[in-house]
Amino acid sequence: MTGFARTTTTYQQGAHTLAGEYYTSPAISHDEIEQLFRRTWMCVGREEELKEAGSYVLHERFGDSIMVVRGRDGVVRAFHNICRHRGTKICEAVSGRFSSTIQCPYHAWTWSTEGQLVGAPHMHEVEGFEKRDHPLLTVPVALWEGFVFVSHDPSPPSFDEVFRPVIDRFGRFGVGALVRVARREYEVKANWKLIMQNYNECLHCPTIHPELNQLLPYTSGANDLHDGAFLGGYMDITAANESVTVTGRRCGLYLGDLPDEDKRRAYYYSFWPNMMLSLHPDYANWYAVWPLSPDRSLVTCEWMMHPASESSAGYDPQGPVELWHTVNAQDWHICEMSQAGVSSRAYKPGPYSPRESIPAAWDRQYLLRMHGNNEKHGRHEKHE
Amino acid sequence: MTGFARTTTTYQQGAHTLAGEYYTSPAISHDEIEQLFRRTWMCVGREEELKEAGSYVLHERFGDSIMVVRGRDGVVRAFHNICRHRGTKICEAVSGRFSSTIQCPYHAWTWSTEGQLVGAPHMHEVEGFEKRDHPLLTVPVALWEGFVFVSHDPSPPSFDEVFRPVIDRFGRFGVGALVRVARREYEVKANWKLIMQNYNECLHCPTIHPELNQLLPYTSGANDLHDGAFLGGYMDITAANESVTVTGRRCGLYLGDLPDEDKRRAYYYSFWPNMMLSLHPDYANWYAVWPLSPDRSLVTCEWMMHPASESSAGYDPQGPVELWHTVNAQDWHICEMSQAGVSSRAYKPGPYSPRESIPAAWDRQYLLRMHGNNEKHGRHEKHE
Amino acid sequence: MTGFARTTTTYQQGAHTLAGEYYTSPAISHDEIEQLFRRTWMCVGREEELKEAGSYVLHERFGDSIMVVRGRDGVVRAFHNICRHRGTKICEAVSGRFSSTIQCPYHAWTWSTEGQLVGAPHMHEVEGFEKRDHPLLTVPVALWEGFVFVSHDPSPPSFDEVFRPVIDRFGRFGVGALVRVARREYEVKANWKLIMQNYNECLHCPTIHPELNQLLPYTSGANDLHDGAFLGGYMDITAANESVTVTGRRCGLYLGDLPDEDKRRAYYYSFWPNMMLSLHPDYANWYAVWPLSPDRSLVTCEWMMHPASESSAGYDPQGPVELWHTVNAQDWHICEMSQAGVSSRAYKPGPYSPRESIPAAWDRQYLLRMHGNNEKHGRHEKHE
Repeated sequence: MTGFARTTTTYQQGAHTLAGEYYTSPAISHDEIEQLFRRTWMCVGREEELKEAGSYVLHERFGDSIMVVRGRDGVVRAFHNICRHRGTKICEAVSGRFSSTIQCPYHAWTWSTEGQLVGAPHMHEVEGFEKRDHPLLTVPVALWEGFVFVSHDPSPPSFDEVFRPVIDRFGRFGVGALVRVARREYEVKANWKLIMQNYNECLHCPTIHPELNQLLPYTSGANDLHDGAFLGGYMDITAANESVTVTGRRCGLYLGDLPDEDKRRAYYYSFWPNMMLSLHPDYANWYAVWPLSPDRSLVTCEWMMHPASESSAGYDPQGPVELWHTVNAQDWHICEMSQAGVSSRAYKPGPYSPRESIPAAWDRQYLLRMHGNNEKHGRHEKHE
Repeated sequence: MTGFARTTTTYQQGAHTLAGEYYTSPAISHDEIEQLFRRTWMCVGREEELKEAGSYVLHERFGDSIMVVRGRDGVVRAFHNICRHRGTKICEAVSGRFSSTIQCPYHAWTWSTEGQLVGAPHMHEVEGFEKRDHPLLTVPVALWEGFVFVSHDPSPPSFDEVFRPVIDRFGRFGVGALVRVARREYEVKANWKLIMQNYNECLHCPTIHPELNQLLPYTSGANDLHDGAFLGGYMDITAANESVTVTGRRCGLYLGDLPDEDKRRAYYYSFWPNMMLSLHPDYANWYAVWPLSPDRSLVTCEWMMHPASESSAGYDPQGPVELWHTVNAQDWHICEMSQAGVSSRAYKPGPYSPRESIPAAWDRQYLLRMHGNNEKHGRHEKHE
Repeated sequence: MTGFARTTTTYQQGAHTLAGEYYTSPAISHDEIEQLFRRTWMCVGREEELKEAGSYVLHERFGDSIMVVRGRDGVVRAFHNICRHRGTKICEAVSGRFSSTIQCPYHAWTWSTEGQLVGAPHMHEVEGFEKRDHPLLTVPVALWEGFVFVSHDPSPPSFDEVFRPVIDRFGRFGVGALVRVARREYEVKANWKLIMQNYNECLHCPTIHPELNQLLPYTSGANDLHDGAFLGGYMDITAANESVTVTGRRCGLYLGDLPDEDKRRAYYYSFWPNMMLSLHPDYANWYAVWPLSPDRSLVTCEWMMHPASESSAGYDPQGPVELWHTVNAQDWHICEMSQAGVSSRAYKPGPYSPRESIPAAWDRQYLLRMHGNNEKHGRHEKHE
C-alpha cells in the first residue's frame, strides 16, 4: 500500500517490470525455493501459539514438515516431523500439545519434548544401536517481537545480522506483546512476487481501493526504507479519521507507547522474502506469502491488538478485519489479473513510474538474491 | 461425415493411421501448437458478434489472450489483451462493449478503441516516456463470409492466398449473411486430430449414427476437394426428406440462392487446421476444435440460418440443433474410445480403407505441415 | 501382518529402510513399471469371474487395456482391447459377456472369441489385405489355484518356474475351489512399497491394530519363506478363538483338508511383486497393490470361502470382511503417514529391527530386481 510521493529519490530511471518467465517458469520457481526460501529466515507464526510446555505447531512448506515445540524446559525448538526409525510423519494435527513425550504412532519410538530418544521397542536387539544417535532432527529457530522464525537451512546466517535494519525499529509499538484477534488464509491464483509488488505501492489505490484511498491518500507519506531486504514507509491518515477501519474510528487502545505523530500514520513494510507488516495506531496486521506453484500462492493474514484492548471503550476488533478483508480481496483479484496478463506469450516488461519506486527496489533485491551482483538477469535468459 | 463412394481415386493404397505418439506425446502436442496453430489463420467467431462500435470478444488460446474489437471507426481489429504498463490482463469478461476507451483496471492506463495510448498516470515523470511508443499490441485479423480469423503469428501468409481453394466456392449459399441460432461447447477426452478424422469419413455412420444414415446414406455423394488443406464433398439427402433434421423436414428458408441440385445435398468440409463447415439446404453449422492437451479437446459448434427464416413458415431452428447434438454426442463418445485405444502401449497403425480416403488425405496434410515434404514420419520417431 | 519372533535367523544386521527417492521419484516409479510390473506375472482376478463361454474381464494398468476372455472353445485367453483397424478401444464395460463374436463399435471389424478376424467392411477393396494378418493381439495368461495371471511382456519367463517356491505349497487349503464372498477397492495416498512392507511385519500391531493383536499376538508364529520373491509365514490364533474374525468365532467350513495345526494358524504371504495372500482356517483373502503414481496406490481386496460354507451352521461371511476392513483402514492410514514422512526432504533411512526381517528381505528383493546383483543402490543415487 506504500506509494509515497515525497521521497522518490531512489527511483531509478529506466526501471522495468520483470520478464514473464519469472512468473511462469517451473524451473525458476524451483530455484526460488532452493535459493531464496530454503536459505533464509521465515516467519511461521507467533510465540503466543506456544504458551504451554509441550504445545506445538506445524510448519509444512517446501518439502519439509517442521514441528515448532515449546519443551517442558520452556525453550522453543523446532524439529523435523519425521520418525528416525522408518521415516513416518509423527504429528498429523497442525497444532496441539504433547503430554510428556513425542511418540511415533507406527512402532512407538518415543522422544522427550527436547528431542532426545527415550524409547525404541526391540531396537536393543540391533548391534551397536544407541538411543543418543537418534534424536529428532533439529531446525534453527529465532524469536523477535513475538514472531517465530525458522530456517530450513541448518546453518543459516545470524538472525540478528539479517534483521539488523529493523530489529530495534518498532520498539514503540510493543509488537511483542500484541495478541491475535483474527486470522485468514487466502489462496491466490498469482505468483507470490506479484502479491509482494502489489503491497509495495499505492499507485493502484484510486482505482482498486476507492474506500482505502479516502483514509490514506496515495500521494501522502514517505518511504523510510528505500532499498535492500526491508522496504517501506508510512502514509498519513486523513484528518477526519482516527484509524484505518471501516468507520475510520479507533478500534482499541493505542499500540505500545506511541508519539503523537504515529497516532496519525500507518506504516507498511515488506520483510525479505515473504513477510509484510502493517502497523496502525491501534492494531497491526502481518502477512506471509507462500508460493504453491508459479501461478498460485497461499497468503496468511493475522490481525493483532493491544492485550488490554478487550476491556477498553470502543473495542471493535472486526473494524480492521472487515476493512482489510475487503482490501485483500480487491488486491488478490487484480494480482490474478496480473498473473493472467504476464503469463501471456505476448507480455513484455513495461516501465515503472516514480510512484512505483518500492516495487522496483523489491525487484532489484529479488534479482540480486537470485543471480548475484554481476549477472542479474543473465542467468535465466535461457528460460522460457 | 463425408465418405463418398463414387470418388475413391485419391485413395492411396497402403495408407495407415498415424502412430500412437501423435495422440499421446506432450512434445508433439507442443510442436503442433508452435508449428501449426500459432502459424496459421484460425476462425475465432462471427462478425455478427461485433455489431456495435466498441464491442469485443476474447479469443484465449495457446498462451495468448486476444481481444477482437470493432473500433469507433467501424474497423475490426485484434489486440493482445495485456496492459503495456505492468502486463495486467485488461478485459476479464469474454465479450462486452467498451464505452469510448479501453482502460486497464490496475493503474488506469487508457487506450482508444483503435489501440492508441491516451492516458498513463504519472508516466510524464519518466524520462523519455512517449505515449506513441505504447499502443496495444496488434494481432492480424481477416474476415471472410462473416467469419473472423486471427493469426497468432504477427506476420502470417496472405489470407486470400491460403484460402484460395475455397474463397469463392460457396457464394451461392450466402454464408456471410447468415445469423446464429444456437451455440454449444463440448469438452471431449480425445486428441483434436481424432475429431477431425471422424468428421472426414462416414464409414462409421451405419454403426455410430443409425438415424443420420437414414437421411444421408454413407455410400452416397462424392468428394470434390480430395487433397490439401481443404477437404470434403457432398452426400445425397434421401428422397423422402427435405433436409438433415430430426423430422427430415426443412426448418427455414433455403440458404442464399441455391440451384436445385444443392437443395438435395449436404456439403461437409474441413478447413485446415481445425475448422469444419457443414452446409445444408436450409442451415449451416460450423465447428472449431481446440487442443487442450494431447488427450483433451474443446469443440465449439454453431448453427446458422437465413436471416429472414425467422418469419417464414415452418421455422424450426431446434430441428438441426437436436439432430446434430445427438450426432455430436455419438461422435465424441467414439472419439474418446479411439483416444483410449490409440493411447495403449500395444496400439500399432492399421490400414485405412478406400472409404476413408479423406481422413487419409487429412493425415498426409498433417504430416506435411508438421515435418515437411521429405521427412514425414521421420522426425518424431524418437518420441514415446 | 507377519512378524514372527522365533525365526530371526535371516535378519541381516545393519539393514536400513530404502532411500526417500524410492518413494517420491517419478523416474524410479517409471522404471518400476517398465522393469518390474511389465516384466512379470501379475494376478488380475479369479477364474470364477469367467465361468461362461464369451465372458470377459478387463485388466487396465500400465498403459494397456487387456481383455481376459473365456473363448467359446472353453479356453481362457487374453487380448489387447484395441481394434486392429484404427486402434479404437473395443470394450468399454470392465466386465461382460460377448455373444458369439467381439465387434469394434466404430467401423464394425469383428473377431471370434478366439481372436480371429472374421469381418472387416470394405477392406476387400484394399490390395493385399488378408483377415489372417489382423487377429486380436494376444497377451500371455496363466492359471493357478483359481487365480488368473497375465504378463504384459509378450515373452515372459515360465509361470511354473517363477512360482515354483509356492506352486504346490497350499494344496491342503483347496484355494482353487474357493468362492468370492466380498470385494473392496481402496485408494491409498502412499507408495505401493510402503503397503507391501506394512503387510510384511506385525511389529506395528500393538499400536496400530490393538484388536487384531488380541487374536494374533505379534510375537507368535514363525516365518517359513525368509528370502526371495515369496515371503511370509504363520501366526498363532490365541487359544480362546477359532478364527480371525470380529467375534473370534469361525465363519464357515474349514478350507480344503486342513491338519489340526493349521486350524489354529493364520498364514500371510507376499508374492512378488504386488500380491498378498492371507490364509485362515475358514477363509482366505488376497490383495493386489497397483501403483498409480509415486505417492498413490490402488489396493484391491477379495475374501473367499469354502463353496459349501453357505449352507453350513454359523455361516457369517461378514465376520472376516468387517475385521479386515477395519484393519485395512488402520494400515492405509499409517502408510499415508509414512508416505508423508519419507517424502520429506529431511528423511534419511533408519534401522530395521529383527522383528522387521521380512520387510528388510522384501526391500533386498526389490533392489535386486531393480538394480541387479552388483549395483544395488548404485544406479539411482543420482535421482532426486
